[in-house]
Amino acid sequence: MKDFTVRPEIEDFAPYVPGMTIEQIQELYGLNSVIKLASNENPLGTSPIVQKVICQNAARAFRYPENHTPRLAATIARSEGVPEECVLVGNGSDEIIDMLFRMKGIPGKSNVIFYENAFAMYRMCAKLAGLEYREVKRDAEYALPLAAMAEAADENTCMVIVTSPDNPTGLAATVDDLATLSGVLPADCLLVVDEAYIDFAWPPESYTPVQAFDQFENIVALRTFSKAYGLAGLRVGYGILPHKLAALVKNARIPFTVNLLAEEAAIAALEDEVFYNETLSLVMRGREYFTDELTKLGCKVWPSQSNFVMFQPPKDPAEIFEELLKKGIIIRPLKSFGLPQCMRVNVGTDTENATFIKTLGEVLNG
Amino acid sequence: MKDFTVRPEIEDFAPYVPGMTIEQIQELYGLNSVIKLASNENPLGTSPIVQKVICQNAARAFRYPENHTPRLAATIARSEGVPEECVLVGNGSDEIIDMLFRMKGIPGKSNVIFYENAFAMYRMCAKLAGLEYREVKRDAEYALPLAAMAEAADENTCMVIVTSPDNPTGLAATVDDLATLSGVLPADCLLVVDEAYIDFAWPPESYTPVQAFDQFENIVALRTFSKAYGLAGLRVGYGILPHKLAALVKNARIPFTVNLLAEEAAIAALEDEVFYNETLSLVMRGREYFTDELTKLGCKVWPSQSNFVMFQPPKDPAEIFEELLKKGIIIRPLKSFGLPQCMRVNVGTDTENATFIKTLGEVLNG
Repeated sequence: MKDFTVRPEIEDFAPYVPGMTIEQIQELYGLNSVIKLASNENPLGTSPIVQKVICQNAARAFRYPENHTPRLAATIARSEGVPEECVLVGNGSDEIIDMLFRMKGIPGKSNVIFYENAFAMYRMCAKLAGLEYREVKRDAEYALPLAAMAEAADENTCMVIVTSPDNPTGLAATVDDLATLSGVLPADCLLVVDEAYIDFAWPPESYTPVQAFDQFENIVALRTFSKAYGLAGLRVGYGILPHKLAALVKNARIPFTVNLLAEEAAIAALEDEVFYNETLSLVMRGREYFTDELTKLGCKVWPSQSNFVMFQPPKDPAEIFEELLKKGIIIRPLKSFGLPQCMRVNVGTDTENATFIKTLGEVLNG
Repeated sequence: MKDFTVRPEIEDFAPYVPGMTIEQIQELYGLNSVIKLASNENPLGTSPIVQKVICQNAARAFRYPENHTPRLAATIARSEGVPEECVLVGNGSDEIIDMLFRMKGIPGKSNVIFYENAFAMYRMCAKLAGLEYREVKRDAEYALPLAAMAEAADENTCMVIVTSPDNPTGLAATVDDLATLSGVLPADCLLVVDEAYIDFAWPPESYTPVQAFDQFENIVALRTFSKAYGLAGLRVGYGILPHKLAALVKNARIPFTVNLLAEEAAIAALEDEVFYNETLSLVMRGREYFTDELTKLGCKVWPSQSNFVMFQPPKDPAEIFEELLKKGIIIRPLKSFGLPQCMRVNVGTDTENATFIKTLGEVLNG
C-alpha cells in the first residue's frame, strides 16, 4: 500500500483510544443497567422542552443553516449582556479554540501557554496549528498557577489559557485573579478563559469576567451548551471575543459548521430556566454530598466549583475503576490527565449519587 | 478599542455576505410563499423516516457522541463496499477538505490545484492552511481542465481537486478521465474528487471511482448527506481515503465534531432507499425539463449530471435575479463563481419547476 507524506507534526499524534460504550459494558459484564458518571454530562438528561423543539424542527433538516448562527448569537448576546458582534458560535467550543489557535498563532513562531493536567484539546490544537505549547507546572495541591503563567509569557505568546472552573480539579479562578493576570500579559496576548463549567460556580459574579466584559480588553471567554444545558451530543458552544478580533475570525472561518437543530435546541435551552435551575440545584446538592461522603470514605477531595469532584482514593484508582465497572458504574480515572493517583466523578441524580457512594464504599472496604 | 494581530493571511479574508432568508424576502416583497431553488437542497425536504429517527433520538442529545462516528462509518463502508478504516466522517465534507489541507499541506511550501469557477471553500481552506493555490483556467465551454491540472502539478503539489459532478457547471468527469489524471500525478500528490453531487450522475458506474477504490492508490473521494439524502442542516459528510492516510488524519483530528443526531439521521437516510430513489427520479426528470424549457426560452444550457443546471440567459442575470426575487423565486446568480453571465437553478418539485419556467418566461419576455 502506498504511503503519503503528511506534515511532520501529524505523524506524531497518538491514536485515540475510545472508552467502552454503555452497551459494550452491559454486554461484557452482563449488566441490566449502567450508571455513567464519567463525562460531566447533564444528570437530568435533555430538557423536555428542548426535545420538543428538536422534533418540531426535524422537518427542516434538509435546509442549510444560516452562516454564523445569527439567531442563537443574538439570543446569547441578550442573555449575557454582551454585544452581538462579539459572540462567535461554534461546533462545540472546541471549534472556537481551534479557530483561535490557527488564526492568531503564527506556525513555527508563536507559543501558547496553559498549565499541566489540563484538557487534552489545547495541546492537540496547538500541535495541529504548528504552535509551541508551554505547560506551566502546578503545585502539590494543583492550584491554578496563574502567576507562573504570566511569567512564562513572552512577546511570542499569542494566548494564555485558563480553564475556570478547571477540569479535572474543579478549582476556579476568581474575577480578581483573572483581572490580575489580564493586566500583566504582553500587549498582543489574549487571556482565553474556558468557562465550560462556569454555570456551576457559585456565586457567579465572583467567577466570570463576562459580567464586566467591556472592562477587559484582552479576554476571550469560551462557553458550551454541553454541560448545564444538556446538549453535549449537539456540539454547540461559543466564544465571546474582543470586537475586532471576532470580525477577523468570522471572515476566515469555515462556513456553516453549526447544525441547524443545534441552533434551535440551544435557543430553547437558553430560554428554559426551569431545567437550568433544576440542573444547578441538583449539581450543587450532589457535589456537597460527594465531598462529604468521599471524605468519610477516606478520600482526599478537592473543593469543586463544577459539576464533578476530583478525589484521591486510599487505593489504586485503576483497580477502583475496574471494580466499579463490573458493578455497572463508570467514573473517570485521571491517568490521561497526568494524575494517576486521582479520579473524577460527575454529579448524577440523587439516586445515582447514593448508589455510587455505597458501591465505592464496598469496593474500598471489600 | 484594542487591536490584536492575527496571521497576515487572516486579515485578508473578505467578510461573508449572507443572502436574505426566505422570511426576510417574504417580508421585503410582501409575499405569502417563496420558492428557493438556489442552494441545491433536496426538493423533497427531509425524509419522513429520518424525521422520526431524529425525534426518537432527541432525548439522547445530552450524551456525547462516539468519536469518529463509528456506527455511521460502518454503515457507509458496507453501503459503498470500501474498508471501514478508509471512511472518515466529518461535520460536513467541508471538515474533511479542511483536515486534508491542514494535515497534508506544509504551510509556505505545498500547493494545491483546483480549477477556476469552483466552490469557494477550496480557496478559503487553502489560504487558511497557508498553502499556495493554483487555479487552472477552463476553456470557453467551462470543460473540466484535467490535463491542464496535471501539467500544473509539481513536486510540491499535495492535492489536485476535481468536483465531479462540478458545481456550478453540472459537468462530470468520467472514471476513465479520473484514472488518467490519477496515473500522471506526482508520487506524493492526492487526487481529491469532491463527489457532493455524485448520486445524480447517470449511470453511476461511469462516474465514480469509488466502485473500484482498491484500484486507485492516490484517490480521496468526498461525499455529503446534504444533497441526495436531504440533510444539509445536519452537517454530515465523509471522505474515503487511502488506508494509511486515513489513520494519520484520524489521530490528529479534533475529536467529537459530528453531532449525535446527525449520525442517527445519516444512518437512517442511507437505509431509506424509497426516499433516495424518489429524489433521484424527481431530479433526473426535473433537469431534463429545465434543459428543454430553458433552451426554448433562448438560454444556453450546460448538460448537467447534477441536481441543478447552469444556463446563460439572453438578458442580464443580475436583473433576472431581482425580478424573480420580487415574484418569490430565488435562484443563484454566478458572479461569485466568476461567471457573471450565468445562473444556476436547482431542481425543485415538479410544481416548483413549472412555476419557475413560467415566471422566467414572463421576466424574459416581459
